[in-house]
Amino acid sequence: MEYVPKQEIKKRIDNFQSHLKEQGFTCAFIFQNVDIFYFAGTIQKSVLFIPVEGDPVLMVQKSLTRAQQESPLEQIIPLKSLYHVPQSLHDLGIDPSGTAGLELDVLPAYIYLWFQDTFRQCHTEDVSPSIRKLRMIKSAYEIEQIKRASIILHTGLTEIAGILKEGMTELEIDGYMGYIARREGHMGIMRMRGWNQEMTYVHVLSGKSGSVPSFLNSPQGGEGTTPAMAQGAGFKKIAKNEPIEIDYGAAVNGYISDQSRTYTIGQLPEIMEKAHECSKRILMLMEKEARPGTVCSDLYHMAVEEAELNGFKDVFMGYGDSQAKFVGHGVGLEIDDLPLLSHNFNNRLQEGMVIAIEPKFVFPELGVVGLEDVYEVTSSGLNRLTLTDQKIIHIKPA
Amino acid sequence: MEYVPKQEIKKRIDNFQSHLKEQGFTCAFIFQNVDIFYFAGTIQKSVLFIPVEGDPVLMVQKSLTRAQQESPLEQIIPLKSLYHVPQSLHDLGIDPSGTAGLELDVLPAYIYLWFQDTFRQCHTEDVSPSIRKLRMIKSAYEIEQIKRASIILHTGLTEIAGILKEGMTELEIDGYMGYIARREGHMGIMRMRGWNQEMTYVHVLSGKSGSVPSFLNSPQGGEGTTPAMAQGAGFKKIAKNEPIEIDYGAAVNGYISDQSRTYTIGQLPEIMEKAHECSKRILMLMEKEARPGTVCSDLYHMAVEEAELNGFKDVFMGYGDSQAKFVGHGVGLEIDDLPLLSHNFNNRLQEGMVIAIEPKFVFPELGVVGLEDVYEVTSSGLNRLTLTDQKIIHIKPA
Repeated sequence: MEYVPKQEIKKRIDNFQSHLKEQGFTCAFIFQNVDIFYFAGTIQKSVLFIPVEGDPVLMVQKSLTRAQQESPLEQIIPLKSLYHVPQSLHDLGIDPSGTAGLELDVLPAYIYLWFQDTFRQCHTEDVSPSIRKLRMIKSAYEIEQIKRASIILHTGLTEIAGILKEGMTELEIDGYMGYIARREGHMGIMRMRGWNQEMTYVHVLSGKSGSVPSFLNSPQGGEGTTPAMAQGAGFKKIAKNEPIEIDYGAAVNGYISDQSRTYTIGQLPEIMEKAHECSKRILMLMEKEARPGTVCSDLYHMAVEEAELNGFKDVFMGYGDSQAKFVGHGVGLEIDDLPLLSHNFNNRLQEGMVIAIEPKFVFPELGVVGLEDVYEVTSSGLNRLTLTDQKIIHIKPA
Repeated sequence: MEYVPKQEIKKRIDNFQSHLKEQGFTCAFIFQNVDIFYFAGTIQKSVLFIPVEGDPVLMVQKSLTRAQQESPLEQIIPLKSLYHVPQSLHDLGIDPSGTAGLELDVLPAYIYLWFQDTFRQCHTEDVSPSIRKLRMIKSAYEIEQIKRASIILHTGLTEIAGILKEGMTELEIDGYMGYIARREGHMGIMRMRGWNQEMTYVHVLSGKSGSVPSFLNSPQGGEGTTPAMAQGAGFKKIAKNEPIEIDYGAAVNGYISDQSRTYTIGQLPEIMEKAHECSKRILMLMEKEARPGTVCSDLYHMAVEEAELNGFKDVFMGYGDSQAKFVGHGVGLEIDDLPLLSHNFNNRLQEGMVIAIEPKFVFPELGVVGLEDVYEVTSSGLNRLTLTDQKIIHIKPA
């Protein structure tokens, strides 16, 4: 088992404590498994207390043994239940007061209310923006994990080309891609932070399936098998001369990579071939323009402009009222990490950010085509971490 | 695409409104996708307003078209953003006051705080206990979906017996089971309500992997591939004469079925054979004793007593401080539906409940054995919905 290196954790805690200090927090209580993993290296059931100065305290309900093996933190203590948090801290001489940070974007209301009622000497503020800002900049260790996840994706996207056949259902292809991902070491889940947002790790959308919008904040949605899922692969059989868009994710040691490729058995309609070329051109444009200092929303607007120049503005990232207003998103421990390359995200790119850029075109009834690749922002510009060739992948009809 | 029948939705809303009235609520605001699906038949991005009397209002951000197709509700209107909820309701002549129900167990704090700040004329109370209580009793339609999911599980658990070979990794088997589930129509996700709880749809745990505890509220956990996931299949290769426990889930139209079987290549250690027999005996005992009116915690204590009689009390549902204090749980739209057959859940069984009963034994270093089956509570007792034979599945060594 590979554990998060002690130096990683130390650096993250140090940076976070600087943030806390700058923002006037006296401490933060971290409850969400992903954020606990970021700061403690474990997702065992626990509450993590991080003071603005001094050692964090990881209070563990289950499994303590495992948390002690996995986390390099110094203070790891057992916790009977949530309601014992104040006593556990008090026993260590800690009685929090002042402004405490909570993850208000994800924390269930009942925990928030319990906290308010319990730590009456604390004033609470949302600390998630600080955490997400920190997590936005990846270390060499984190980028290495995303590279490893990218290798899994390359294997899957390559291997599936030998298996795709007319008449297979989207579900069968989806299942097979999932099989490859797991066989190659994908950890089995892709986490998403947004409320009510959820994902499987494959979207296989063929022909008109690719043009069905969904609740998901993404260019394509897909019908899925049921309104209860309402996204991704469905019972549709893949046919000749239509796009088969495979959006594929995998995660290693928590870190996600995310890639999309367009396949076709036979030949795509000419307009979709052209749109795919435009997708490639937009990626090249992003590669040329993006570097530390570039404003994220500028990149989005450049992408829209390029789509418009090619006559594809109306189908760029969806159509009608389901058009998504971004061309890329951060990836890391969550698939909706920051930054966003969106119409209103005005932060500047920084070295160490990792972004999935996914210029896609969704044609009503015809489906979706496009590319998605993951890039690291380096001092000299974008460095692609995903490996598969950016062409349309043509399968010979049987 | 199969939609939730209009009569189902109508009955659910009617029952919920009776609950609201009994509990003194004037209305409820439903935000979580699963609960919205239960009452509206769609998970499109929306907010569902249910007054104590009169028609619900489904306010949809994305995709409105799809929500209109999927939901049989009468009032479905577009919603620009969360912040437009009061205006949208006001335009329909609705200005909520009195006690409003919110899902405090799952609702993110920021939405709760927005609600408090926005609907100042409302007092809020947790409405999740009412929702969970309603959802605990399944209709014939809902039980039908769980039966369909059970057929997928039977196919997977049967087919995998022809594939298991010494030297395969747990991950490869997990991936293959996932492939079968999807190929057969599993919707692709298994939802869990508990905070920070999450699941893939397969756990493949061989030998000592089965004895690694995790944060998960379940008898077995497993190492997984990384502390970032910390459960389920890992890189371990399966070997002869050890248990291979496959805990398998699938969902059809939202409804989950959940089953576990023990496989072995060659022969299990005698003590584990005995424990597996005890698992079978506990299931038979539950089948004999459970009927409408039986107290859930009594069933748990009977199971513990049977384990004790057979000398397996210390390894029943885990060992040491990771021992789970339940022997079964409800299944439905979430895998942690009510009721619980646990030490402190004192409600009585009712007709229409659907429960997974999973007497398992976890031996340190040796692994986990046991059965899990899903039952419907009928007027005359338990009716098993899962199909696979309850024996240990022996695979001949190559």
